[in-house]
Amino acid sequence: MSSAYAELLQTLRGVATLTSVASLLGWDQETMMPPRAGGVRAEELALISKLAHERATAPRTGELLAECEADGEVMSDAAAAANLREIRRDYERATKLPSELVAEFQETASRAVEAWKGARGESDFAAFEPWLRRLVTLCHRKAECYGAPEGGELYDALLDEYEPEMTGEQIEEIFAPLREELTPLIAETTSSPYQPSRAVREQRFPIRKQKELNAYVLERVGFDLEAGRMDVSVHPFSAGIAPGDTRITTRYREDDFPEALGSTMHEAGHALYEQGLPRAEHWGQPLGESVGLGIHESQSRLWENHVGRSRPYWEWLLPQARRVLGSQLDSVSVDDLYQSVNIVRPDLIRVESDEATYSLHIMLRFDLERAMLRGDLDPADLPGAWNERIAADLGLEVPDDSRGCLQDIHWSMGAIGYFPTYTLGSLYAAQVWEALCAEIPDLDEQMSRGEFGAVLTWLREKVHRHGRRYPAAELCAKLTGAPLSHEPLMRHLREKLDSIYRLDAQTTA
Amino acid sequence: MSSAYAELLQTLRGVATLTSVASLLGWDQETMMPPRAGGVRAEELALISKLAHERATAPRTGELLAECEADGEVMSDAAAAANLREIRRDYERATKLPSELVAEFQETASRAVEAWKGARGESDFAAFEPWLRRLVTLCHRKAECYGAPEGGELYDALLDEYEPEMTGEQIEEIFAPLREELTPLIAETTSSPYQPSRAVREQRFPIRKQKELNAYVLERVGFDLEAGRMDVSVHPFSAGIAPGDTRITTRYREDDFPEALGSTMHEAGHALYEQGLPRAEHWGQPLGESVGLGIHESQSRLWENHVGRSRPYWEWLLPQARRVLGSQLDSVSVDDLYQSVNIVRPDLIRVESDEATYSLHIMLRFDLERAMLRGDLDPADLPGAWNERIAADLGLEVPDDSRGCLQDIHWSMGAIGYFPTYTLGSLYAAQVWEALCAEIPDLDEQMSRGEFGAVLTWLREKVHRHGRRYPAAELCAKLTGAPLSHEPLMRHLREKLDSIYRLDAQTTA
Repeated sequence: MSSAYAELLQTLRGVATLTSVASLLGWDQETMMPPRAGGVRAEELALISKLAHERATAPRTGELLAECEADGEVMSDAAAAANLREIRRDYERATKLPSELVAEFQETASRAVEAWKGARGESDFAAFEPWLRRLVTLCHRKAECYGAPEGGELYDALLDEYEPEMTGEQIEEIFAPLREELTPLIAETTSSPYQPSRAVREQRFPIRKQKELNAYVLERVGFDLEAGRMDVSVHPFSAGIAPGDTRITTRYREDDFPEALGSTMHEAGHALYEQGLPRAEHWGQPLGESVGLGIHESQSRLWENHVGRSRPYWEWLLPQARRVLGSQLDSVSVDDLYQSVNIVRPDLIRVESDEATYSLHIMLRFDLERAMLRGDLDPADLPGAWNERIAADLGLEVPDDSRGCLQDIHWSMGAIGYFPTYTLGSLYAAQVWEALCAEIPDLDEQMSRGEFGAVLTWLREKVHRHGRRYPAAELCAKLTGAPLSHEPLMRHLREKLDSIYRLDAQTTA
Repeated sequence: MSSAYAELLQTLRGVATLTSVASLLGWDQETMMPPRAGGVRAEELALISKLAHERATAPRTGELLAECEADGEVMSDAAAAANLREIRRDYERATKLPSELVAEFQETASRAVEAWKGARGESDFAAFEPWLRRLVTLCHRKAECYGAPEGGELYDALLDEYEPEMTGEQIEEIFAPLREELTPLIAETTSSPYQPSRAVREQRFPIRKQKELNAYVLERVGFDLEAGRMDVSVHPFSAGIAPGDTRITTRYREDDFPEALGSTMHEAGHALYEQGLPRAEHWGQPLGESVGLGIHESQSRLWENHVGRSRPYWEWLLPQARRVLGSQLDSVSVDDLYQSVNIVRPDLIRVESDEATYSLHIMLRFDLERAMLRGDLDPADLPGAWNERIAADLGLEVPDDSRGCLQDIHWSMGAIGYFPTYTLGSLYAAQVWEALCAEIPDLDEQMSRGEFGAVLTWLREKVHRHGRRYPAAELCAKLTGAPLSHEPLMRHLREKLDSIYRLDAQTTA
């Protein structure tokens, strides 16, 4: 290894160390931190982010990078070349931002999150509006520093942080046919004469017992508790803090045990990806990092929806649930539960939405955040615009902003460009799942016995271990032989809902 | 405020921000961190400590400090002058250490803590010995950087970090008469024909219920849960992480509910001090910080022993305990419990020792760590030396090192010079308590009603709000009208044990 390359990696390890500290501070803020510590936490995050950014963008880092790129021997190593390609990408982006803006952004976001929590609790949009305005302005400044790609828009510059190389226009092109096919499918299911019962999932179980069940499931899908932990938070999330330290949260409701299970499976999907990355060997290097949020979300959606909402999974899970939660579940059948977790019903809340209507929530947020960044939508007009879209897309009336535009944490964190990656994740997941199913013929039987090792091994081999070696589009093509498309997700939904809602039968009848 | 003073305070605020991050990392390591994250955590702590040290010792900091000291207007303000006196002290100490040593020390200590956990679990001193040796060497290097005070020894340079201005010799002078009076008192109690029963405290109660009781007590003594939290850890501790963020831990045993209560009161004492410091106004300044560990420990000992082991306190607590823990306690009397928490019985474990024998544990550690630093005791010979002293001082045989020289975390953290502050704390506490009692005549009645507001207000006013304005010796003289002495503690113990063990009666008989 050349000395320049070694020094470069050492520098990046320092940056990663600081970033991991920031990540822990963020995790703590959402799970453990006492309320009165919010102000100092914002200062801490601002300072650590600034120090990490200064280190990443130091002139010496640029010199080392250029020296490595000019070194034929280094570049002839495929791993090093992939690393350097991505280091260059990160460096170019990072050096476009002044460290002061990074610190200001981080501090504002950290304070805004606390303001959002209060505003959401009181359903008081007016209290949050100045923060939103400030964040949109900061996002705009950040996007201007990055600059729009040729022929693109400022939004693309932000999106690029979450989903490298993707543009708003490309997303529109994928979302449009998805929307076109989703809308009639949702209409068919909601108007079907056969409607599965939700009652089976609404039995009450003590949270203590639910925790035991969730911990059991988490371990069974392969989460390493020696290298991670699970806690409770208002908004479930996953944090790949450092090698050997991946933490997830979930949330419980006494009267809806499958919800916590779904949330656990979702976050477990993220966490299994983090635990499967070669982080220890490549700490601080792109080869030890995840590709982008779309692929990250594909891992969570795959476990949440393709495993966790499948019939074989519930065949295995129901007896486990009976054992832990008790005899109340004796009268419930696998089909009851399987159907109840796949009910299509427009909901005001994104994170409580079903697989089919979920993407409509994302499209709405994508459109509104893009409009805010363009200046076409004033932050003050957000609630009105939100409520109109909910009425138009989901046929629901928003009773208050806490169940409307205040429901999500993202904008309060200054994360504009993040939302579309959720649906990209669903699309990647469906497409990857088809490839995986083709290669593991007895998958359903395995899952019905609670065996998830083959799924995890496949994902480890095909996705996790590569880190950022392949960009998302290339990885997708490599895995599935095709570019990203809305079709696998529509096939998956169509097939499942046809059977549950007996849509075929209707058509035949 | 002069611009140099403002800039100096701003710099120190940055140092405090980094120190608070390190403190959170340490808290997390003891309470939440998954086992496999230990290596990265050590790197994180090393880097953050190094950055904080670099900032604190930057030449610009020294220039600003000198400029302020030369500014008659700044120095004419008593608060600023006190701040600058202590900033100078800190600066002089910090600049004597190279940042590299700070980082190496921090990283070694962080790894050694993990090694110690393993070694203690297995009672495997050999596994810990190389770490201990490394830490003693590092402590020696650190002490040499600081330099021994005139006429003093290297140990003093380390002690000065925990108990400013105190020397090993002064400690010897206080410990000697204490030992002389403690030894016969312990002999009298242990040989008294009347022996209180321990059985009353050994009833079993679920930890869930104990947690509820401890949380209730914590709130009643005045701990602000909006600005702190309580968790569980192997070794209970308190961490004043930042303004608005003071965290404590405790530990539970099903068959000893008073132990957790004692541990909670102890840590609450530390935490009430932290919450009472003017940290928000003086964040990063000596005026917002605690005086030293002796005074800090006096706060914990005061609440643990003078409040939490008093009869009036148990008059109040027993009905609360019955309410939360259940009817098992109906047959237990206040005197039963009061006596059971004051039993004098030599114990192998420091943190489980009674008020009287506790200080013998400290004297042993003080002597052994001083000998290790001087090179008079090789780390390999620690178990032998330990076991001999335990036999001589407490009449006990050490069955394994996990109940011997591996029981405490301190040396694994590189904390040599820390232990004596525990007994200094007990001495300060007894002396301060006498002053407090003299000024609150109906204190016993208040405590028997579960009213602790007067105690807290007195401590806030006399101790907490001053930060480091007065050095420990000056504060002690101001509060009690006398220099630190072993006599108040001996009076306290003598009076209590005379009554419980009926020693007076014996003498009279």
